[in-house]
Amino acid sequence: MKKAVVLFSGGLDSTTCLALANAQGFAVHALSFDYSQRHAAEIEAARKLAGLMGTAAHLVLKLPLGTIGGSALTSELAVPKDREAQEMASGIPVTYVPARNTVFLSLALAWAEVLGAPDIFIGVNALDYSGYPDCRPRFIAAFQAMANLAIKEAVEGHLSIKIHTPLMAMTKAEIIKTGLELGVDYSLTHSCYDPGPGGLACGHCDSCLLRKKGFAEAGVGDPTHYQD
Amino acid sequence: MKKAVVLFSGGLDSTTCLALANAQGFAVHALSFDYSQRHAAEIEAARKLAGLMGTAAHLVLKLPLGTIGGSALTSELAVPKDREAQEMASGIPVTYVPARNTVFLSLALAWAEVLGAPDIFIGVNALDYSGYPDCRPRFIAAFQAMANLAIKEAVEGHLSIKIHTPLMAMTKAEIIKTGLELGVDYSLTHSCYDPGPGGLACGHCDSCLLRKKGFAEAGVGDPTHYQD
Repeated sequence: MKKAVVLFSGGLDSTTCLALANAQGFAVHALSFDYSQRHAAEIEAARKLAGLMGTAAHLVLKLPLGTIGGSALTSELAVPKDREAQEMASGIPVTYVPARNTVFLSLALAWAEVLGAPDIFIGVNALDYSGYPDCRPRFIAAFQAMANLAIKEAVEGHLSIKIHTPLMAMTKAEIIKTGLELGVDYSLTHSCYDPGPGGLACGHCDSCLLRKKGFAEAGVGDPTHYQD
Repeated sequence: MKKAVVLFSGGLDSTTCLALANAQGFAVHALSFDYSQRHAAEIEAARKLAGLMGTAAHLVLKLPLGTIGGSALTSELAVPKDREAQEMASGIPVTYVPARNTVFLSLALAWAEVLGAPDIFIGVNALDYSGYPDCRPRFIAAFQAMANLAIKEAVEGHLSIKIHTPLMAMTKAEIIKTGLELGVDYSLTHSCYDPGPGGLACGHCDSCLLRKKGFAEAGVGDPTHYQD
């Protein structure tokens, strides 16, 4: 069985991405990060889902992104609520975490090299998303090119890194339908940026709004427990 | 004063690189990593030097590269000793740390964005080195291209990331001469991969051998305290 490293937050997108890697026959090595995010509830979701979905390994690494700061997700800055779709599309919000996917993919690359696994999966999406620059196809292509110049195993010709982005061109509704066909239990995934007590989703941040819209457009009941 | 992020291990190369950034008039924001390296003595060297060299800030971040493994520097694998120059030039040794400079530069990129500092310095060198792929000009160019697609401030046109590698084409002797002209106290820098008790340099690993050769070729006394 070919091994793959799958970036896995425990959210809706990365859980679907993991299910797709599973379905493609990869031995999934899931990689999560405890990076001082205010929604640490997603790490517990990731642990539970990794166990249930039959991953070959699950690593949760601690990263000091909170020390670097610059984001509402890792500081006291307020998370924006109830933004309209048009507003979401108009710029990059304060929930952007500086260089987050670059840092995450770099550590995935390190693990991939140690495992001898050329395949890295990331659940980025350029349609129903918050405009983050490190979710776009151009960024992913540039990262892959850089990765193949960066590591010993690639430079010596033993493996060629491929960054898989199976959700890139899907709407949130398509992602949900795909996951449901693969048996994903979305009641266990966590999307909210700013959960309340007990990890309950706020229902009003961009991530909750995109999730709600996705279930509505897919014509499927949303199994999420919201605070209100 | 323009700010710059300088990757700073406390070794001979990165200390010279920091001195050059200082001399170019940058407000130096030094970035070091505690990544489970067996030569943690270099972190203490970095702290001392950052204080003495007048940096604007010094951040020491903890990274879980030891959990990922795959290197003699972060595991129980033996560090090779007394290798000839020809052997060093013939391949990438077990002291290679998977994706290390990719991970380090990614975190430098995150901090640079938060600081609004487009300039990142790294003391890589492609002449007197151990053949690590992530020290070559092609890798640095690819990282810079990726970085400018990765972050909000670059994509929005507020800053254009430049990775400075002032040591890239210098011999170790030239690096030492340059540093001495800038007043670097090399007795405080730490190069050894496998130090003994009290952080004393082994004198036999690649890093010690390259350092010794550099001082010899520069015609300057080596101020390092070796174990034997």
